[in-house]
Amino acid sequence: MKSDPIHPPYRMLMGPGPIDADPRVLRAMSAALVGQYDPAMTGWMNETMGLYREVFRTDNQATMLIDGTSRAGIEAALVSLLEPGDRVLVPVFGRFGNLLREIAERCDAEVHVIEAPWGEVFRPEQIEQAIREVQPKLLAVVQGDTSTTMCQPLEALGEICRRHGVLFYTDVTASLAGNEFRADDWGLDAVTAGLQKCLAGPSGSAPITLSPRAVEVINRRRHVEAGLKKEGDDDARGLRIRSNYFDLAMIMDYWSEARLNHHTEATSMLYAARECARLLVEEGMDNAIARHRLHGRAMLAGVQGLGLRPFGDVDNKMHNVVGIEIPDGVDGEALRRTLIQDYAIEIGTSFGPLHGRIWRIGTMGYNARRDAVMTTLAALEQVLRHAGVTLNAGGGTGAAREIYQEG
Amino acid sequence: MKSDPIHPPYRMLMGPGPIDADPRVLRAMSAALVGQYDPAMTGWMNETMGLYREVFRTDNQATMLIDGTSRAGIEAALVSLLEPGDRVLVPVFGRFGNLLREIAERCDAEVHVIEAPWGEVFRPEQIEQAIREVQPKLLAVVQGDTSTTMCQPLEALGEICRRHGVLFYTDVTASLAGNEFRADDWGLDAVTAGLQKCLAGPSGSAPITLSPRAVEVINRRRHVEAGLKKEGDDDARGLRIRSNYFDLAMIMDYWSEARLNHHTEATSMLYAARECARLLVEEGMDNAIARHRLHGRAMLAGVQGLGLRPFGDVDNKMHNVVGIEIPDGVDGEALRRTLIQDYAIEIGTSFGPLHGRIWRIGTMGYNARRDAVMTTLAALEQVLRHAGVTLNAGGGTGAAREIYQEG
Repeated sequence: MKSDPIHPPYRMLMGPGPIDADPRVLRAMSAALVGQYDPAMTGWMNETMGLYREVFRTDNQATMLIDGTSRAGIEAALVSLLEPGDRVLVPVFGRFGNLLREIAERCDAEVHVIEAPWGEVFRPEQIEQAIREVQPKLLAVVQGDTSTTMCQPLEALGEICRRHGVLFYTDVTASLAGNEFRADDWGLDAVTAGLQKCLAGPSGSAPITLSPRAVEVINRRRHVEAGLKKEGDDDARGLRIRSNYFDLAMIMDYWSEARLNHHTEATSMLYAARECARLLVEEGMDNAIARHRLHGRAMLAGVQGLGLRPFGDVDNKMHNVVGIEIPDGVDGEALRRTLIQDYAIEIGTSFGPLHGRIWRIGTMGYNARRDAVMTTLAALEQVLRHAGVTLNAGGGTGAAREIYQEG
Repeated sequence: MKSDPIHPPYRMLMGPGPIDADPRVLRAMSAALVGQYDPAMTGWMNETMGLYREVFRTDNQATMLIDGTSRAGIEAALVSLLEPGDRVLVPVFGRFGNLLREIAERCDAEVHVIEAPWGEVFRPEQIEQAIREVQPKLLAVVQGDTSTTMCQPLEALGEICRRHGVLFYTDVTASLAGNEFRADDWGLDAVTAGLQKCLAGPSGSAPITLSPRAVEVINRRRHVEAGLKKEGDDDARGLRIRSNYFDLAMIMDYWSEARLNHHTEATSMLYAARECARLLVEEGMDNAIARHRLHGRAMLAGVQGLGLRPFGDVDNKMHNVVGIEIPDGVDGEALRRTLIQDYAIEIGTSFGPLHGRIWRIGTMGYNARRDAVMTTLAALEQVLRHAGVTLNAGGGTGAAREIYQEG
């Protein structure tokens, strides 16, 4: 079969992610490879650990990358922390809560779920009540669930977990760097992420951080790989972790000064992950979050200025994505196609109960920019009018400009 | 923390992999992203399936990528094919055989191992004998084990497996595109690979192909993810696959026209994987294998021309890597450091029982080139002499040139 070198059509990706990668991240990926144990390579691994400590706001030594997409990070955390029969509590407020539930079930954990209606979040008292009832080993909850755009407040949960002797895990793929997050101050034991949202990179690498408490739990199940075992190597007593690829005890050994061989690190993805974090640290995490807050406010105001209704509890939505109710009589998918065809702008569809009911527009990572917000609103006005929706001409961009003038 | 944009030191990676990526593959990775369901993206996914069918020499519909390093592909194959208690036979002739064994054990399969001394391969009769005794569901064997450089002949095994009703799985990460391989003609049911050897790409994507028979076995365990299930979606009766990330039934749905959402495809790695296969198909698989054979012969002749002893059964070694016994009195690691410091050439160390006994030199992918072979031999001569080894001046490059003159 005959095929040509890759040559992507021009796009501005304003959906809920993946979004356009920062050009500096793309350039980093085209750098030459070096050997797996080259001092340059192990130096970058150590730098990457340090950079992600700043991104996660943690002092955790065990801060590294899982070689896979964000759900690889989730599975690594759950399969390494949970043994068959362990109780886990999963508060579900959208599709990604269901994913945590499903992965925990596949670990043969005893999974207990509480559910909030899509478009809402949980109050800490609800979660504490469920913890009292379930007495789980682990609380597993996503911070941001892109399926609903909601952002679960986490700051009160760490203290609750400590009080009840529960490990506290969150996935921040959708929210990290776009919304306030503090792994240590908030008492997190395990945190996983991905690059393809506010980190402005491609999918394919999953940063993770583990508290000393989580490391201790995992290392009770540490077993050195058969082919690497040396005289005197002592395995831990605990049940061997079910996955080799996601065995965090082995992955920690690989990222430690011992450098025990595990997988062959995905070097180009490490370059990407390192560059994503480097750019955020250079900008400053507070500045990055403020940038997402500003452009998110402008997009929300613009959408409302066009006369559209945002979805759900907007006080608890992520800064970096907004759900928009599709006006009556409009074919949501047809409008998305027109936006791509005429303006090369991609906005998001939705899943499950919200399918056909809302669009999702992101303002994240490289696309958390004034021109991206203004261009999207201008194009949206045109395609909505074309679809027969009555709206305020200029109302979207006008409302967004007001936000920018306030600053 | 302050860190700079990535800027790798110059290297020529002549170890057993990863090796230098082809510059065209690196360029492909710096292409802009598009949305996950953009017709451009799904078109590239389909192209990638077609290209890997040519690389694996198969008509299997189920030919796709696993988003992770090569061991992610191995784990996906084993965890999806094996249920707890299933019998699997693993012929082990090096470290990567031990890896298959370990991953199968973690699936709670009943793992039976036969072992060949490191440096040798199995005769088909030995494997058939073990199949008779064990009566496994699956035979799992690597084609090339880089730890020993050996290449297990596979062509007779498919017929044996069919006769005994056994599924036949191989990992060809180390050997694919550098050595003859024919998935369909040889009766393979599952094959996994990686990009970082003869495919001339970075680690981080694992091509996989599954025969209709393997697909049927896997689909008996197909369960649609909770968050995606629709009215009337029927789950299969079989035990749910233990991993979500490596659930090949779900991954096949994602790569099918149904496009059921699973992970967010690692777009840049897909660009890389597609380009690796595209370059091979453009060159022609037979030509690519002939190129590896030629440069492998030249390197072997050169090493012998220097008076060094190749390791193991050289008639059964992979074309793309050679093991070299470290001469008495030479500090193997010190010599490797000098090679990098003075010539920027990396050659490989070794694992387990061979550690400190052999070096491994690769001639693969982008580095299966005459200048790479000649430069490595010239540099090797210098550092060996510097280390006090008595050798034939010019004997390495001279012997290699003779091979090139024969053609």
